[in-house]
This record gives sequence, C-alpha cells and structure tokens, in this order.
Amino acid sequence: MHVLIIGAAGMVGRKLTERLAKDGAVGAKPITKLTLLDVIEPSVPPAFKGESVARAADLADPATAPAIVATRPDIIFHLAAIVSGEAEADFDKGYRINLDGTRFLFEAIRQEGMNEPYLPRLVFTSSIAVFGAPFGDTIGDEFLSAPLTCYGTQKAIGELLLNDYSRRGFMDGIGIRLPTICIRPGKPNKAASGFFSNILREPLIGQEAVLPVDDSMRHWHASPRSCVGFLLHAATLDTSRLEGRRNLSLPGLSATVAEQIEALRRIAGDKAVALIRREHDPAIQKMVGGWARDFTPTRALALGFKADSSFDEIIKVHIEDELGGSLP
Amino acid sequence: MHVLIIGAAGMVGRKLTERLAKDGAVGAKPITKLTLLDVIEPSVPPAFKGESVARAADLADPATAPAIVATRPDIIFHLAAIVSGEAEADFDKGYRINLDGTRFLFEAIRQEGMNEPYLPRLVFTSSIAVFGAPFGDTIGDEFLSAPLTCYGTQKAIGELLLNDYSRRGFMDGIGIRLPTICIRPGKPNKAASGFFSNILREPLIGQEAVLPVDDSMRHWHASPRSCVGFLLHAATLDTSRLEGRRNLSLPGLSATVAEQIEALRRIAGDKAVALIRREHDPAIQKMVGGWARDFTPTRALALGFKADSSFDEIIKVHIEDELGGSLP
Repeated sequence: MHVLIIGAAGMVGRKLTERLAKDGAVGAKPITKLTLLDVIEPSVPPAFKGESVARAADLADPATAPAIVATRPDIIFHLAAIVSGEAEADFDKGYRINLDGTRFLFEAIRQEGMNEPYLPRLVFTSSIAVFGAPFGDTIGDEFLSAPLTCYGTQKAIGELLLNDYSRRGFMDGIGIRLPTICIRPGKPNKAASGFFSNILREPLIGQEAVLPVDDSMRHWHASPRSCVGFLLHAATLDTSRLEGRRNLSLPGLSATVAEQIEALRRIAGDKAVALIRREHDPAIQKMVGGWARDFTPTRALALGFKADSSFDEIIKVHIEDELGGSLP
Repeated sequence: MHVLIIGAAGMVGRKLTERLAKDGAVGAKPITKLTLLDVIEPSVPPAFKGESVARAADLADPATAPAIVATRPDIIFHLAAIVSGEAEADFDKGYRINLDGTRFLFEAIRQEGMNEPYLPRLVFTSSIAVFGAPFGDTIGDEFLSAPLTCYGTQKAIGELLLNDYSRRGFMDGIGIRLPTICIRPGKPNKAASGFFSNILREPLIGQEAVLPVDDSMRHWHASPRSCVGFLLHAATLDTSRLEGRRNLSLPGLSATVAEQIEALRRIAGDKAVALIRREHDPAIQKMVGGWARDFTPTRALALGFKADSSFDEIIKVHIEDELGGSLP
C-alpha cells in the first residue's frame, strides 16, 4: 500500500511519519511505499524499510497535486495548512494554500479517476476553528459552522468540498476536527493557542513560561499521540458508517488552565508551577475566549475515536515521547 | 445610488428589476443608476428613468467582476447561479459559476477597496439546499450545513466566503436562504422542485400538470413577491444587527402538497384540481423527501423579514401579478 502525507514536515506530519515507519503498516496492510511532501523537504525516518520519496513542493502551485496524485497513493493524509495567525495576517496566502491548495488536490484526484478508476482514502485535518461564538457550553454534532477567522473559514470550505467530492464518488474522504494539540513539542509557532502547551512544556524542563489568560479559561485538548491515533483510525474506518456526513468533531479533553496547572503540580511539583508567569494579554484572552471549549462528539465516539483520559496522562505522554521517559 | 443586479435576466432578477424600476428607490434612497448583468443581456424596464446599463457577461470569466465592480455600485444583488439539477449534471460548470464566479466577485470588491475605500452592500441569494437530511421536523438557526447536492455545497461555500469577506471589512454582505419560490411564473426550468409550482400554475389557466410525489409531501415556500421583499429588506437592513452571522434562513410557508391543492380548490374550484394528474416518480419523491420542509427562522423574523401567510395568499399574488388580476 502506498501512503502519501502532505504536510509531512509539520509537527503532526512528523509524528504520523514516525509512527507509520515504526508500524510498517496501516491497520493490517503493509506500507510498501511512503511519499512525503511539504514546502520544505521532509525527512524519511531510517526505521522505514519500504520505498520512500520525499519532496519539497507547494500545494498552491497548480502543477503539484496532479503530479503527486499521478503516483496513485492508496491513502492520502492532507495535513498541510497555513496556521490561524498567519492565515489571518496574510489573507491571500491563507486562501491560496488552505483553500486553493486543498481544491487542487481534490480536483487532481477526480481527474486521475477519469483516466482510470481511482478512489483513494483521503484524511483531511480540519479544526475546531470551524466553530465560532456564540455557542453553548458544549458543541454537538449538528451545530453550525460559523468561523470567526480566515483559517476556520478555509477549513470549513475544505470540509464542504471533501463531502461533495466523496458523495459524487471521486474520493473516499473523511475530515476530522482535531482538538488543540497539547503538549505541542518544540518551539512556539504563530498559533495564538501556543500558551496552552508552553505553560506545561517549558516548566517541565525547568524554564519559564508566560500565561496570558485567566486560570478559568477552558479549552479542548488532545495529545500528539492521540492525534496520530485519530489519523490512523480515520484512515482505516469503514466510511459507509459516516452515512454521508464525512466531517467529524473528535473527542478531546476539556480542561481549564487551572486543571492543567494542577496536573503539572502532581507530576512535576510546586517548583515547576512556580515557573509559570502570569502576564495578562487582553487580546489573547478575548480571542481564545471566542473558541470552542467543550464538545459532545457523540458520532466520533460511536465510531471508535478515543481521547486522552486526563491531563496527567497528556503530561506523561509528553515525558515518554519527548523527554526520554523522565524529567531532567 | 447605483444598484447592480447580477443574474438580472433570471426569474427573481426580472421581478426585482421591475420593482426597483417602479419604486425608483431602495428604501429612502433614489436609484440614479441601474446596472443589469446576466449571461444573456437583461432588458431594462421602460418605467426606469435613471441611467441604465445592461450587459451580457459571464461571471465565471475572471475579467467580468473587476470590470463591473470598477463602476463602484452601492448595492450589489448577486442572484446569478446554475440551478440545482444542472449543477449536479455538469460538475465543472456548477463549480465554475456558483463557486468561482462568486469568489471572483467578492475578490474584485476587495481589490477595488484597496485602490480607494469601498464597502458596498452585497445581497447574496443562498438556498435551503445548504441543509441536507437527516434533520428534525424543523430546522433552527444553529443547525449545520450538510448539503446533499453540488448546488447546496456551492451555496454553503458562498455563505462562508461572504461572512469572512464581510468580517474582514472588505464588503457589507448578507446571505439569505430563500425558500422555494412558488408559484414560479413562466415555463418549467431544470429544478426538481418545479412541480410545486406546476400543479398550481397550469390548472389556474386550464392546463394539466403532473404531480410526481405523495400528497403528504411537505415543503417550504415563498411567493415571488415575498422574495423581492426579502431582497429589498436585506439591502436596507442595519447589518450590525446580524452580529457577525451574516447568513440567514428566511421565513417561509411550510405546506403539504395536499394543502396546496386545497388552496387551489378554494380559489379555482374542483375543475382546476381535476387537472392535476398523479404520476408517481420514485426518484423525485426520494430527492424532494431529502429536502428541508420546515424552519424556525427566529433570527430572520426578529430582523423583520416577512413571509406569505397562506397558500391562498400565494395563489392570489400569482393571479394579481401574472394573470392580470383574474382567472381566465
């Protein structure tokens, strides 16, 4: 089986690539070929034993998608996106990558299928940013998409296209709205949600982190490991069970900043918690306050998607996967 | 004030044009210039006394929107669309007109505003086809868009773009989801919903009509006159009252086919009803059965949009506006 990852050099892409290289299979099917694509050339993990191709290419270039789809991958993970902050700051760039790029990909799949029957599984990472306030305490499976950002708008449009192209039999798509990934490894990116990770990741290694919002701020989280689990489950799920609604809010963990901090205290003690510096930022407080904070993802749960059980578990996953299993 | 109607040669476009020509104003503001655009050259009603321009042009041509927007209309009615049946049959054409054409228009407005500040009111006719089964007996203002057709998908994407371009201050948009227009004057078009009008329009003039579905089929209707009322109200509404959610399900009249027929009987007698020939079409029954049949349009009602009160009224409007005030 040939697997293509678009956006393979990003954080989620790298995690997924590592897992696929380690498993050597998706579900029960061995991976014979792995194609990795991103704007910078992704690296192929040495653990992977099959054929591999890594390419630097821009999905917003109309020539990219047809060339890559012509290799007829069986599973396509479409993770590539301009993140929320950048899509808002650079309106043209956000639409070019997040909307045009996605549409070029779907259309290339349709065109390829006109030459010779072709129906790849396509897993698209959407986002809870397709929802915008006002909403109730929890968001159900039938709540409207009313995004408050360009990024959320572009993801919502991607969802609609995915559903239509799949309904017409051009591809076998599934869109999954990922919770905010926490703890994000590495350095902060341009996402306004970065502090949710920073206030745990930095103190765990003895460094200071800034908390710009109130401790009572509630948000919706999933660990990178859960996220990879979501992607693999979406890649192997019987999509007839989606009954024509191919975009799903995934399960996550709803927690306040205070609950995050108490989990940190249980695992790394008061001295770690003392490294969180409160520096209120009204702009971030306002923006994050408009984001979805809790969901009732009935459909995704029934379909077997599994979230993290507690913030203690999320922190332990980070220590295992990023810090070699113990605190420094 | 300069008013532009895109899709001016269609049924709704012609009705709107006639009303604007008659009123000579939108709300309290006189119309000094009227620009009419469609793929075939629209005609300017002789009643209109201001400057007028009628042009045949294709909105899917990237040059069309910038040229027309450069004339800086104050109000733009964007009614142009490939209808549902055709958008489903010709996938490329539907996306080219309904998605690309709409995006070219919004983007031309944004670009015009970069040259010199410009914030036109843009009224976009969306559709109840943005909703798809399963849904409850009635659809509320917070129900998800899960379209089951290309047309519905393209309208839902238009709504998302409209909201984002308006949120960013590039235009002052409002999207209105029209009920099915009944009684549609003229000849049947390619819409699968045509029979809802045919079973009234044809018997009123002594001609036979075919009913392809069960009498118990319920649907959501508005007269052409109400529809023009919706457009004018949307053109003059204080859009700050939309609070960032600029797409609305409009009020309509929910009625079964049996209720339509009884209204016809009250107004035109048993001999008119006898002209309805039942010829069951399982494909149409199935398709129409998947459409929304009732709404709770709380927001639109609060904003002052007004629906027809009964099917008797809808038939009387048709007799007044299309048959010169009396039955033949």
